[in-house]
Amino acid sequence: MHAGEFERIGKRLFLEHLVGGNFGNMSFREGSGFFIKRTGAYLDVAEEPVFVPLTGDVPGHASSEYRVHREVYKNTGYRAVVHGHPPFSVTASLVMDAIVPEDSEGKMFCPVIPVVTGPPGSQEIADNVGQSLRSSRLVVVRGHGTFAGGATLDEAYVLTSLCEHACRVIALKRSFLTI
Amino acid sequence: MHAGEFERIGKRLFLEHLVGGNFGNMSFREGSGFFIKRTGAYLDVAEEPVFVPLTGDVPGHASSEYRVHREVYKNTGYRAVVHGHPPFSVTASLVMDAIVPEDSEGKMFCPVIPVVTGPPGSQEIADNVGQSLRSSRLVVVRGHGTFAGGATLDEAYVLTSLCEHACRVIALKRSFLTI
Amino acid sequence: MHAGEFERIGKRLFLEHLVGGNFGNMSFREGSGFFIKRTGAYLDVAEEPVFVPLTGDVPGHASSEYRVHREVYKNTGYRAVVHGHPPFSVTASLVMDAIVPEDSEGKMFCPVIPVVTGPPGSQEIADNVGQSLRSSRLVVVRGHGTFAGGATLDEAYVLTSLCEHACRVIALKRSFLTI
Amino acid sequence: MHAGEFERIGKRLFLEHLVGGNFGNMSFREGSGFFIKRTGAYLDVAEEPVFVPLTGDVPGHASSEYRVHREVYKNTGYRAVVHGHPPFSVTASLVMDAIVPEDSEGKMFCPVIPVVTGPPGSQEIADNVGQSLRSSRLVVVRGHGTFAGGATLDEAYVLTSLCEHACRVIALKRSFLTI
Repeated sequence: MHAGEFERIGKRLFLEHLVGGNFGNMSFREGSGFFIKRTGAYLDVAEEPVFVPLTGDVPGHASSEYRVHREVYKNTGYRAVVHGHPPFSVTASLVMDAIVPEDSEGKMFCPVIPVVTGPPGSQEIADNVGQSLRSSRLVVVRGHGTFAGGATLDEAYVLTSLCEHACRVIALKRSFLTI
Repeated sequence: MHAGEFERIGKRLFLEHLVGGNFGNMSFREGSGFFIKRTGAYLDVAEEPVFVPLTGDVPGHASSEYRVHREVYKNTGYRAVVHGHPPFSVTASLVMDAIVPEDSEGKMFCPVIPVVTGPPGSQEIADNVGQSLRSSRLVVVRGHGTFAGGATLDEAYVLTSLCEHACRVIALKRSFLTI
Repeated sequence: MHAGEFERIGKRLFLEHLVGGNFGNMSFREGSGFFIKRTGAYLDVAEEPVFVPLTGDVPGHASSEYRVHREVYKNTGYRAVVHGHPPFSVTASLVMDAIVPEDSEGKMFCPVIPVVTGPPGSQEIADNVGQSLRSSRLVVVRGHGTFAGGATLDEAYVLTSLCEHACRVIALKRSFLTI
Repeated sequence: MHAGEFERIGKRLFLEHLVGGNFGNMSFREGSGFFIKRTGAYLDVAEEPVFVPLTGDVPGHASSEYRVHREVYKNTGYRAVVHGHPPFSVTASLVMDAIVPEDSEGKMFCPVIPVVTGPPGSQEIADNVGQSLRSSRLVVVRGHGTFAGGATLDEAYVLTSLCEHACRVIALKRSFLTI
């Protein structure tokens, strides 16, 4: 039922190199919980997502990052979350404590992108991201990837793209200035 | 009616990484105005563009960059405009006041690419781009993106590709020379 | 019979820029041997792979890298092997004796990626890779490419993607730190 | 008749970022001349190529680079030529007089890639490339792009991919060594 929507956004994420392999995931709110990517599934291939309730038991085949998504929905009004592994954003998060875009879209839509820490799959990362997305639409987990919240999957995907664009510009600027 | 043409060019822009997410836009002249991308639409997905008259009221769902396109058509004979967000061009515009290509296509078709300023969506950016495209086929708005004018959407897209290629070569040259 | 599976994984490898042209290859175990890409074939185009027995004569149209795959299956329990030529991994192998990922996925799934040597197509490279994959899921042959072992082609492909992501982050980190 | 073959190779060149926009071209020998891309056409879109005789008048809609292809066929036994604009190769040609690959495929198939000069479309470039391809399968015109000769379009395309891979590795190696 929702497989087509996931595939549509997943293909965009894959073709823009915002995720590789079967990494990354996404979800959207519905009723008493949210639908999230199945663990190990490719984002760009149609596959029915898994329903996870906001509280209580979680199906075994839900993405191992379900904790982050759950905290985001508990702490914010977002209806969708996209988690990517875009290489420039991941790298920026290794060397910066907050990312300050220099391109006009970054400045306009996310003038400061916070960087938080925590091991993938842990409650710590879930708490940090959930907390962070209360005041930002976008956050990067150090060395891991982006989490973006939106009213729709499209909105969360566009923010992910914006984040990578901003980080690419920051990195390229340095190479332009090298000589 | 025009959705297929927009999609065809949009897919090229997307696959060449000249736009990401739903950023960028394009338009072409017709009758007393021009057709432009709908605000928030993806360039690479078929969707009917919006007609904007050269003077007078503008439909609410036209791309927020309609002012730039309008000024270009008022000031030049171009029949189509493509606006992309290619990362090397955006970065070059942050550190240069004019971009001087070093590759043979850049030298031949656009030996000096002007860089102008102005906040996205403003009349200032519209005036600067409109003025600039009177003497150049291509301009980069600092930190924002490219605007290219042509007789057709194809021509404006090819110039966008040429601009990014030229800026990529300039940046890579520096990395080749680093050691 | 197996052409579709090879094509499915091959398209992913190609679109992620983990292989270019007709370089790279893949295989999976079956019965007394394994199926491997035909020599000169494109990974992303459906073409029936060639059966190579674990011992004895090898069909002339098998990939010239069949020796490596044979040693891997003789030395390990992997059921599939993917060999890519991802540029960041190849480059990292020129300047490092072992690759230590700094991103969280690399740290988690392959904290040290060994680098081995040997001329492409030789028994030396086959022995070195076969030996190396006994204790690692992933190895890079200096200046040549990645070999990843898995229970399935999907698993071996995902490790290849992970390797390139890790090497890209290492390289980009240096560019972020340049200034 | 030949449009499908051109499109098949053209799509590969486009998706590998070896050409952008409508730049680059290709041809193959037949009878008393060769078929070459129509001027202004996209390499990745099916369009019937133009027949150019080895001597005598040239149809006006043939690619403007037909002189190079003609000289190559007059001077060598190649049956196909691919001309791309891959950014790393173009940049390497700006700073090197000959490109010496450091990756194993480059070393094996093209240990020294000559760099020649000449303005696009001129007889000078045609003479230099024609001369150069007598002893090399691959040449880069400074600041312009690659020319590769082969028995087939596939072979010439694969060499183009190999050239860009080799140049990418050379450039990335420098960035790995920066710190």
